[in-house]
Amino acid sequence: MSLSYVAAGVDIDASNRAVARMKALARATARPEVLADIGPFAALFRLNAGGSYADPVLVASTDGVGTKVKIARVLGRYTTIGRDLVNACVNDVLTTGAQPLFFLDYIAGNGLTEDIKVALVAGMADACREAGCALVGGETADMPGVYAPGEFDLAGFVVGIVERAALLDGSRIAEGDLLIALPSDGLHTNGYSLVRAAFGVCLGGPENDARDRELLARTYPELEGMTLGDALLVPHRSYVRDLRAVLPRLKGLAHITGGGLVDNLPRILPAGLAARIDRSSWTVPPLFRLIQRAGQIAEDEMFRTFNMGIGMVAVAAPDDAHALLDTGMLPDAWIVGSVVRNGFGANDADGPRVHFV
Amino acid sequence: MSLSYVAAGVDIDASNRAVARMKALARATARPEVLADIGPFAALFRLNAGGSYADPVLVASTDGVGTKVKIARVLGRYTTIGRDLVNACVNDVLTTGAQPLFFLDYIAGNGLTEDIKVALVAGMADACREAGCALVGGETADMPGVYAPGEFDLAGFVVGIVERAALLDGSRIAEGDLLIALPSDGLHTNGYSLVRAAFGVCLGGPENDARDRELLARTYPELEGMTLGDALLVPHRSYVRDLRAVLPRLKGLAHITGGGLVDNLPRILPAGLAARIDRSSWTVPPLFRLIQRAGQIAEDEMFRTFNMGIGMVAVAAPDDAHALLDTGMLPDAWIVGSVVRNGFGANDADGPRVHFV
Repeated sequence: MSLSYVAAGVDIDASNRAVARMKALARATARPEVLADIGPFAALFRLNAGGSYADPVLVASTDGVGTKVKIARVLGRYTTIGRDLVNACVNDVLTTGAQPLFFLDYIAGNGLTEDIKVALVAGMADACREAGCALVGGETADMPGVYAPGEFDLAGFVVGIVERAALLDGSRIAEGDLLIALPSDGLHTNGYSLVRAAFGVCLGGPENDARDRELLARTYPELEGMTLGDALLVPHRSYVRDLRAVLPRLKGLAHITGGGLVDNLPRILPAGLAARIDRSSWTVPPLFRLIQRAGQIAEDEMFRTFNMGIGMVAVAAPDDAHALLDTGMLPDAWIVGSVVRNGFGANDADGPRVHFV
Repeated sequence: MSLSYVAAGVDIDASNRAVARMKALARATARPEVLADIGPFAALFRLNAGGSYADPVLVASTDGVGTKVKIARVLGRYTTIGRDLVNACVNDVLTTGAQPLFFLDYIAGNGLTEDIKVALVAGMADACREAGCALVGGETADMPGVYAPGEFDLAGFVVGIVERAALLDGSRIAEGDLLIALPSDGLHTNGYSLVRAAFGVCLGGPENDARDRELLARTYPELEGMTLGDALLVPHRSYVRDLRAVLPRLKGLAHITGGGLVDNLPRILPAGLAARIDRSSWTVPPLFRLIQRAGQIAEDEMFRTFNMGIGMVAVAAPDDAHALLDTGMLPDAWIVGSVVRNGFGANDADGPRVHFV
């Protein structure tokens, strides 16, 4: 028997065809800094072609989309999950006050077709364009044996830039500052392993696809006509366009990802301060209550796992916070709480730093 | 039944412990530009703290290590595969003449222990330090259901910098220039799916681990006492330290990755030029011949899949090439061929662009 790489599960020619189509999608996201057709092994970005910087700080983040990929695979929807990947990353960069500059993706799987790979990248390219970020490169790996047939994973990498003087680092946050909540669009990209367990869906491999599709096609009164699958695949919202103009009036931004408000909000608070969250200021979206009911999940576990309807929290001085809301610059935002002294102990290790009232 | 995230396969507390240990490893790689303890959602890198740049070009690359991860998992060796990841990435950035600045990693898997995650990052941190590159962040995702139990994947992301005037883009390469080969250390990170098929090893999941370990423990005359597993896990060599000082004397660099010399060398050649490779200038290392014999793989398939003993090819004018070799600046390099006119057709689409003589 003579072995070739195609027979071993890797088809370089097919990969090259997919790469050519991805490059066309990427070109549509170009910024003036992108040096195209140079550097075949790496992407090149000429910083000064986009402006001049006094004391530039590069901001980098990497993220995946968790097991949301499993639901996307079962339903055969690949564009929105590409969008999820970019938005999860650009929101992280945004928390520092930075603008995203460029993005690279890593796609790995087993038996992904050329069309699937291109659909994933098409979603990434759309989201990059919306964030003003150039899709400059990526790696696509065929990995039979590591991934089960049809399964895949995604990782995204984004680099942004911010002048050091404009860096949002939370250090100016003070007692009395207000917390502004921006609504999430569904679960974003966190908590999917718990959701899958709660509904008993997408827990196995392709052999369960038919049953998984049946479960995901169900409707529930809480979802007002949407199927469960539709509700679970709503893409991670990007806050780049919403917040770009108001960054100078903010003191900090927390992206509410894995760990929920409880874990993520304290990450930007200076020592000695805590967040007081007014639970009556918003209604947790019905999707979260449906998940809670399906999995019989305790309330504090819900708040520690899901965003519960809040995708980003901005911190601002009271005057700024009210001005931003009153002038309609953040149309769907609301005041969700305030910064208080952490009265539960002598240091931050004592007691919780997010208090729900 | 009440569900919690731990029961669903995700243990946030254990992940947090691993993250704390990873951060300690990352700190040991810091450069003056790294703004530590700021920006919990993203890594910050203050460009001007490391020097001043006239016309800086950022160079970015992402890469994985292919199914080499399967062999690492079966043998329980995680440090070297972390090193593989960094070196695969920094070599790509190096091809543009850039110095790597910072690195981020993505680790995803199913049931990886805290110790395994830390071992992976320890290898990355070692390789980052050797390349003068700061490990600034990463994402670790527990993804039960996407990966089989114990399986994992890695993606790396590196950003480097080069002055535009020093950018290596291959455009100055001319007929008569010489090709300098730098030896690889084993397979680097390409061709592992074919190798696994050739030896019938690491093709399934953990249920085959005992048999896989037995196959990987075998010795062969070609390996001179090494086991097959040892030979297959030799880390991807980094060329950053070897080549840093000689970059100004080079016209181009090709990283010999998937596709081998045949696919990678033409990527840096201007239109109308081809590479003439003198096959008698080196002996293909015995590991490749062993793989070829085990899989009954055709010679051209070998050269299209593996690096065949050459991990990087540098292009230089004849005087520079000879000077670099004669002065011992590249102690284990050799002249492997030259740049010739592509005489096989009117344009590059006609005929091969790498000719073996």
